[in-house]
Amino acid sequence: MPFTYLTNMPLEQAKRDYLSLLVEHGYAPKTQVIPVQQACGRVTAEAVYAHICAPHYAASAMDGVAVTARDTFGATETTPVTLRPDQFMVLDTGDAIPEGRDAVIMVEDIVKNYDGSITIHSAAAPWQHIRQIGEDVCAGEMILPAHTVVSPSAIGAMLAGGVLELSVLCKPLVGIIPTGDEIVPPCTDPKPGDIMEFNSSIFSAMLDQWGAESKTYPIVPDRFDEIKAAVSKAAAECDIAILNAGSSAGREDFSARVIGELGQVLYHGIAMKPGKPAILGCLGAKPVLGVPGYPVSGIIVIEELLKPLIEYWLSTAAAPAPTAMATLTRPVVSGLKYQEFVRVRMGYVGGKLMASPLNRGSGMVSSFMKADGILPIPQEVEGYEVGEQVQVRLLSREDKLRNTLVVIGSHDPLLDELANLMHLKNCGVYMSSAHVGSMGGIMAIRRGEAHAAGCHLLDTETGEYNRSFIRKYFPKGGVKLLRCVGRQQGLMLQKGNPLGIERFADIARPGLRYVNRQKGSGTRILTDYLCKNAGLTTDSIYGYEREELTHTSVAAQLASGSADAGMGIYSAARLYDLDFLPVCIEEYDLLIPDHAWDSPLVRQMVEVLKSQAFRDKLLAMGGYTLDRPGEIISID
Amino acid sequence: MPFTYLTNMPLEQAKRDYLSLLVEHGYAPKTQVIPVQQACGRVTAEAVYAHICAPHYAASAMDGVAVTARDTFGATETTPVTLRPDQFMVLDTGDAIPEGRDAVIMVEDIVKNYDGSITIHSAAAPWQHIRQIGEDVCAGEMILPAHTVVSPSAIGAMLAGGVLELSVLCKPLVGIIPTGDEIVPPCTDPKPGDIMEFNSSIFSAMLDQWGAESKTYPIVPDRFDEIKAAVSKAAAECDIAILNAGSSAGREDFSARVIGELGQVLYHGIAMKPGKPAILGCLGAKPVLGVPGYPVSGIIVIEELLKPLIEYWLSTAAAPAPTAMATLTRPVVSGLKYQEFVRVRMGYVGGKLMASPLNRGSGMVSSFMKADGILPIPQEVEGYEVGEQVQVRLLSREDKLRNTLVVIGSHDPLLDELANLMHLKNCGVYMSSAHVGSMGGIMAIRRGEAHAAGCHLLDTETGEYNRSFIRKYFPKGGVKLLRCVGRQQGLMLQKGNPLGIERFADIARPGLRYVNRQKGSGTRILTDYLCKNAGLTTDSIYGYEREELTHTSVAAQLASGSADAGMGIYSAARLYDLDFLPVCIEEYDLLIPDHAWDSPLVRQMVEVLKSQAFRDKLLAMGGYTLDRPGEIISID
Repeated sequence: MPFTYLTNMPLEQAKRDYLSLLVEHGYAPKTQVIPVQQACGRVTAEAVYAHICAPHYAASAMDGVAVTARDTFGATETTPVTLRPDQFMVLDTGDAIPEGRDAVIMVEDIVKNYDGSITIHSAAAPWQHIRQIGEDVCAGEMILPAHTVVSPSAIGAMLAGGVLELSVLCKPLVGIIPTGDEIVPPCTDPKPGDIMEFNSSIFSAMLDQWGAESKTYPIVPDRFDEIKAAVSKAAAECDIAILNAGSSAGREDFSARVIGELGQVLYHGIAMKPGKPAILGCLGAKPVLGVPGYPVSGIIVIEELLKPLIEYWLSTAAAPAPTAMATLTRPVVSGLKYQEFVRVRMGYVGGKLMASPLNRGSGMVSSFMKADGILPIPQEVEGYEVGEQVQVRLLSREDKLRNTLVVIGSHDPLLDELANLMHLKNCGVYMSSAHVGSMGGIMAIRRGEAHAAGCHLLDTETGEYNRSFIRKYFPKGGVKLLRCVGRQQGLMLQKGNPLGIERFADIARPGLRYVNRQKGSGTRILTDYLCKNAGLTTDSIYGYEREELTHTSVAAQLASGSADAGMGIYSAARLYDLDFLPVCIEEYDLLIPDHAWDSPLVRQMVEVLKSQAFRDKLLAMGGYTLDRPGEIISID
Repeated sequence: MPFTYLTNMPLEQAKRDYLSLLVEHGYAPKTQVIPVQQACGRVTAEAVYAHICAPHYAASAMDGVAVTARDTFGATETTPVTLRPDQFMVLDTGDAIPEGRDAVIMVEDIVKNYDGSITIHSAAAPWQHIRQIGEDVCAGEMILPAHTVVSPSAIGAMLAGGVLELSVLCKPLVGIIPTGDEIVPPCTDPKPGDIMEFNSSIFSAMLDQWGAESKTYPIVPDRFDEIKAAVSKAAAECDIAILNAGSSAGREDFSARVIGELGQVLYHGIAMKPGKPAILGCLGAKPVLGVPGYPVSGIIVIEELLKPLIEYWLSTAAAPAPTAMATLTRPVVSGLKYQEFVRVRMGYVGGKLMASPLNRGSGMVSSFMKADGILPIPQEVEGYEVGEQVQVRLLSREDKLRNTLVVIGSHDPLLDELANLMHLKNCGVYMSSAHVGSMGGIMAIRRGEAHAAGCHLLDTETGEYNRSFIRKYFPKGGVKLLRCVGRQQGLMLQKGNPLGIERFADIARPGLRYVNRQKGSGTRILTDYLCKNAGLTTDSIYGYEREELTHTSVAAQLASGSADAGMGIYSAARLYDLDFLPVCIEEYDLLIPDHAWDSPLVRQMVEVLKSQAFRDKLLAMGGYTLDRPGEIISID
């Protein structure tokens, strides 16, 4: 097959062609002999036959006496038979039947006589109450077919059948080679420009879950000869090699050339997103994959292109990924040039399973962690509309999705603490929270997508929080407003306030770099209102269009020195050790649709809101006032 | 709570009371700090917060140049802006944005000039093409709540957030103490009366699957003081201890007394079958369970009574066992004194999920291995009728059940070889075979319970095999008869034929011990016919009522010396190195219902029947003739 460079090969064809090429080159599992006790979860290499019978001797199935059935023939209630001591033998359950005996009489059916004899009142049928040889397993019988996963009870059956070791398929060993001049091992104090190498840890954990082993090599700098040497070594020592990063067509991307020189590149460039720059190559029978550096691209490539090779090796029928139909809460647009994999958060709201697309950035490993499912968008599909029913591959269990409190709206770190306390109290309860601002939360509740929404919307006419918005957006009712906390809002400033900011209007000072929250967030509405009151035109504020989605991320920009001021809550400023200029205390409440009100999830949330543990936690974080959290606020 | 001895405590109450007692005594998880890289599948002990932001610096999201956005303001197609070399800096994706720069322009939007300057035709918005600090993870943000199972991507998110180690719940360590004078370690040549100790290996594998660790202690003989010392030691060294066997009320059953003297016995005797003699006890906060010795009883007790303690420790919401409604193929009778757990084999036949009860003997570890599900029969239910819809807890995956060829009927070891070859060819295909004799197979096909039935029924009027039975039992058709093999039937005899058996009629000789097959099996019908022809009354044959279910188990009785003759096939005699007196060659065919004929499962079976691999295997086994296997036999 031809060498191809940054092609756009359809995923399914690439998978098929790759496996055929490898098998043609001799890609096949190795086998090893291991003790049966260590075989749980391993795959038999060949059929396993019993060496001995189990039981391996005729055993008493009862406590009683062993007799010769013939000696008892004729015994009835009216014509009892007496057996001399040499005609029977006392034995317990599991004891071997002595030579010449062929029946057991239960201890409760025997009358013991003074002279040591026993009397019985019914005849024993030959072989009664005897566990026959081979009742469980017969010598020579097939215990397990080839290519079967060994279960705990199969371990028992093999040992019972005298099988002490067996031949299993080796776990394929995958060598992972991290490359890149900027790559450093995980640490707590990386320098600007350093990229921490954690992909190998993710891949290694995935491989372990699939029944493979992995070996991570030291980080190789972007030098052709060093990468080439590392690939040679990994291919010699392992069954499969992964070259991580360097798979795109940029200036330091040697992967495809290295693999091409050492062996063969089948495809470079797969019609998938994320993951397009993947390289499918081999050194003889050893697969060598070039995997993109962004973690999410890497995860998808490993899952789509490496996993099938592991399954082939282990001859395990891939469990079909569990799927479910869900309602899409936001539209998703996708190109016709590739198959796309969109991460979604999911949960049942009002009996309907909802799927909300997560950030599609391929650097966002946290979005993969938060995902409950993957929505595959076929190459020929341009995307899906909001409200459309889509088929999602589930990553989370169905029972988790049914027990997840879906919170969409304004961000506050207290939501994470609430989730943690709820889950600690009942490990079968989960929370998923999405930060789309207060207005976004109201809209999500209107569309039936959430059980709760955090909001803190100031009515600039009345100075009142939330209630007028609810009257406006829910004119027919159908929602409850739940008191949560009072929050200290203000200007977060760099430590020590080097610019000497004294009042809100100072954010318009020339040279000051502001960082803002996104439109629709309560904090943005407050900021716009404060600007108007102070007579500031927002055009005059440098960075006013620079939008962050959470208080914490605004604080992070300030802490890093890339901005000088931003509105946010006290707890975020405190977390980053920033200066803080208080502006106002606002009401942060929770909006709950009536249909969710009586649900166990909301009930458990309210319990936690009212708990001492919640109060203690928030007071420790600072900047919160708690006035009867969990109580319903009258809207009218 | 009172000490109770061989009570009959309802299972659910026993579970509840046991856990409450333990928690009251301080039963709780321990925690340990481990490197994040080793945390996959472990459970967080407390919430994990990010230490640093990811990215931890503002990074270029593109290959291009870093600029100060202010310098580009005003640039348009018609009014381009030119930047001096000191006004921009070339950088790659992932590079840090230099101090003072706040935007990136993509390389494709730049015109390079000869003097080293660049020209741009549109203004850069501040922060365009820059990955903001904390875009993925913000320092101080909660990455994982407490009591959460760590996934591969969570490992990535933690490392990205500068978290290198975390506190997780320890895996509970379960000490397993095998006891009994007759117990020996697994071996290939146990002596009569020896019972091989494989329960600890089964339990250990189960515990590993549940996230616990285990430590198996040496076998302790049935001596009170030694058992007591072993329990003390295990309770001191482990978090939980299991005393295996000695839990019933027999003469050597010290378990309850030992636990009672060292600590407390809550219940001895649970209303469950198998598993009734279980003991629930503790030494302070350490649970100590007495587990019955029969492997199936042990497995059920561990599953029902120990697993909840592991789940409590690991704060993992138990995944609800997947269940399915299935049609029962045989009635099940159960007592009102206990909740029963019946193992069933399952498969979809004609679109309906069938459940066939397996042997209920608690010594039958192989039946547990073969089980696809467990049918729990509540204490207040006396059993279920044939054909009744019952709810079964699934042990096998749904896709396995859908791809299992269900074969019910006459036994032949060739079925196992057929299953093995089918599965080797396609790892997504399985076979389940039940041995109920030829007539049983015909009935199973009539009831729609099987895809195929092995049968070899001799019409004693015509000497013809199978066809007349099919005409009789399927008068309206609806089935196909598939040619399989010719089999050599005969008398299996002890090695060397010590009794000098010369012809079939010799089985009625005084002193000869016969072992028979069960009524309804083709071999039994053949034997009855041969007796009639030879003028033998079956009453005169000693052991004629001793029934075994397979050729192999008949051979096993002969090999062990517990019988002198039995009818069976040559391959079974050969397997056990027995003498063999040929009697006739019979036709062993496969009966297939029309509804299954075109199914992929049957098609794959027919392919294997016609294959060289199947022929080679059977010729190697001996006693088979293969004449166009896989062809349809005309019934009329």
